[in-house]
Amino acid sequence: MTLPKKHLFDLPEGVIYLDGNSLGPLPKGAVDSASRVIADEWGTELIRAWNTADWMTLPSRLGDLIAPLIGAPKGSVATGDTLSIKVYQALASALKRVPDRRVILSDSGNFPSDLYMAQGLIRTLDQAYELRTPAPEDVLEAITDEVAVVMITQVDYRSGGMHDMTAITEKAQSVGAVMIWDLAHSAGAVPVDMLGCNAEFAVGCTYKYLNGGPGAPAFIYARPDIIADVEPALAGWLGHDAPFAMDPEYRPAMSIERLRVGTPPILQLAVLEQALTAWEGVSMAELRAASIHLSETFIREVEARCPDLVLASPRHPAQRGSQVSFAFEHGYPAMQALIDHGVIGDFRAPDIMRFGFTPLYLDDADVLRACEIMEMIFQEALWRDPKYQVRSRVT
Amino acid sequence: MTLPKKHLFDLPEGVIYLDGNSLGPLPKGAVDSASRVIADEWGTELIRAWNTADWMTLPSRLGDLIAPLIGAPKGSVATGDTLSIKVYQALASALKRVPDRRVILSDSGNFPSDLYMAQGLIRTLDQAYELRTPAPEDVLEAITDEVAVVMITQVDYRSGGMHDMTAITEKAQSVGAVMIWDLAHSAGAVPVDMLGCNAEFAVGCTYKYLNGGPGAPAFIYARPDIIADVEPALAGWLGHDAPFAMDPEYRPAMSIERLRVGTPPILQLAVLEQALTAWEGVSMAELRAASIHLSETFIREVEARCPDLVLASPRHPAQRGSQVSFAFEHGYPAMQALIDHGVIGDFRAPDIMRFGFTPLYLDDADVLRACEIMEMIFQEALWRDPKYQVRSRVT
Repeated sequence: MTLPKKHLFDLPEGVIYLDGNSLGPLPKGAVDSASRVIADEWGTELIRAWNTADWMTLPSRLGDLIAPLIGAPKGSVATGDTLSIKVYQALASALKRVPDRRVILSDSGNFPSDLYMAQGLIRTLDQAYELRTPAPEDVLEAITDEVAVVMITQVDYRSGGMHDMTAITEKAQSVGAVMIWDLAHSAGAVPVDMLGCNAEFAVGCTYKYLNGGPGAPAFIYARPDIIADVEPALAGWLGHDAPFAMDPEYRPAMSIERLRVGTPPILQLAVLEQALTAWEGVSMAELRAASIHLSETFIREVEARCPDLVLASPRHPAQRGSQVSFAFEHGYPAMQALIDHGVIGDFRAPDIMRFGFTPLYLDDADVLRACEIMEMIFQEALWRDPKYQVRSRVT
Repeated sequence: MTLPKKHLFDLPEGVIYLDGNSLGPLPKGAVDSASRVIADEWGTELIRAWNTADWMTLPSRLGDLIAPLIGAPKGSVATGDTLSIKVYQALASALKRVPDRRVILSDSGNFPSDLYMAQGLIRTLDQAYELRTPAPEDVLEAITDEVAVVMITQVDYRSGGMHDMTAITEKAQSVGAVMIWDLAHSAGAVPVDMLGCNAEFAVGCTYKYLNGGPGAPAFIYARPDIIADVEPALAGWLGHDAPFAMDPEYRPAMSIERLRVGTPPILQLAVLEQALTAWEGVSMAELRAASIHLSETFIREVEARCPDLVLASPRHPAQRGSQVSFAFEHGYPAMQALIDHGVIGDFRAPDIMRFGFTPLYLDDADVLRACEIMEMIFQEALWRDPKYQVRSRVT
């Protein structure tokens, strides 16, 4: 048993953190990593640190640390930018592979930014592309031979419902469409087998289950056999085959580095590097079993203790990612009351209370204590307190 | 006299840093800023820090700190992403404003990544767009009524030659083209008057003269009167009018925030915020006068002491940015020898030795000492040492 690894995280006293699906907590050593890169590397080495501290290869090295967590081989994952940018990269490249079709298929449960990026790309292309967003349960049958690209987030950010990557990828490829998976709520949360599912592209972020910190860089995967003919729409100098040749013509790197764009965010990457050390020796199968155990416990206890809450996630654990959502009409103030009492989850409009289960640093005692606090909040209807009704900007 | 502000920077003992045009040095307080945001905000507040530590508005607040340095009003500068991404945003938006033309005009002195991003956009659009790159001195006459967008870096990264923003913008707009300025080597280096020159867009980076650290985020300016009809190609959720409404349809913010894309890199932004405090009370006119004084001294002394070096920058200071370049056949090993002896500049293929002048933290004594060391290196031809011939990845 390699879990939990709670000792590797700085969790504040008195807080049960059920929001690692939104922003992972602070790994111990992150301040030291940042101080080292700032004072010792930037401060002392200055421009030389690109070589002497090996900043230039940091994005690729981190890609190789993320790869095994998503069933990808080394050399198939690039890091940098934001998830939205990586969605655009993957989608624009995927559309190039199916030049005669004009339908992008996603689903209505996808995270809005993925849909927005597709809408922005469509407006930019100024051709008759169409974005279709059927309900998540209707995706499979919506994959027809009109579809150029299927772009789906595996785990629904609201319900926690999880798509079958193999089945959807097979269907997409059987009609000649290209498959893109957004692993925002999958990487570090559930076992992912990119090579096994055979999808062409995947994208994801590192500030949720990978604990890279606020605004940590995103990642993008391309299946090894297609990397050399992926056409980057965002053709930045660090995706060039020889960035420092200062060639006036773009010539993409023959590796996954062609999906790098601009100068990498070294401070964020250094902290992410520290965060990724927590995954050494972790079996994703073991982590998944622990996650299911924690979330099953949570559902059972919450349903017994808080009858006002209605499960908004699939009941069968195989159909859920690593989060559990409950619907409650007054979910916003209820979540504020919970947070105020030390149980941090989050709220998503219109009525979803979300709770993330992260066995790296959560155990049974945490979950049971959270359920006791929830019971108290709901029994006493503490969420009615006017102070919990005030909306913050980020909800 | 508000300059120099050397006491605000941690410069290593024995180093004369003439490469602030590539990566600015470490501002004092940067480690503390990073530690605060990591330990106190992320570590303690966790997800709540988006509100309690005001992370969500940090990109806009920093935009408002950069604005006065480029003659832009508050509310006209957004920060985030990389300069390459911001080039793409500006260029895609600019092309939308001139739908009936197919020529993008840049120049052969532009930084390659700007040209690559234009090439990538053209390939993505899959229409008959053409990128023209005349020599820098031929730009004005190349602005014809075929041109949709003029996209120029004001200060040439190799020669330091500086374009006249007013003249080029006027010419561009007189033929109905949209103007984009890349201020990578201008912001914090020379006085810039975005409102005065009337250009529609500008982009820039913050890790050079603004000292934001390795991979610090970029910025983008849109002229206030056009912001509300700029069409974002990269339509991310943080550019949405109500990001947390989770609307399935993109609806851009009515402010410069529509040019934000994904989740902002909070650690990098916190360090940049600290770096920008150095600009309090700095007059750009005074900084420019100091920069010219330093670079004139440098040219005079180098030409007297190192006759092998040929000035590769315009001789008249009004035509230069804040860097001086010398051409030398063995520029690469010569620069390595200089660095080894404590004078840090950089090299750009094929034969350019670059030196940046940054009056915030450089004074006469630094420049004279650098010239003495250069004289010694060249008199003794120390650059012939085989150890200086070894090429590093980043040169």
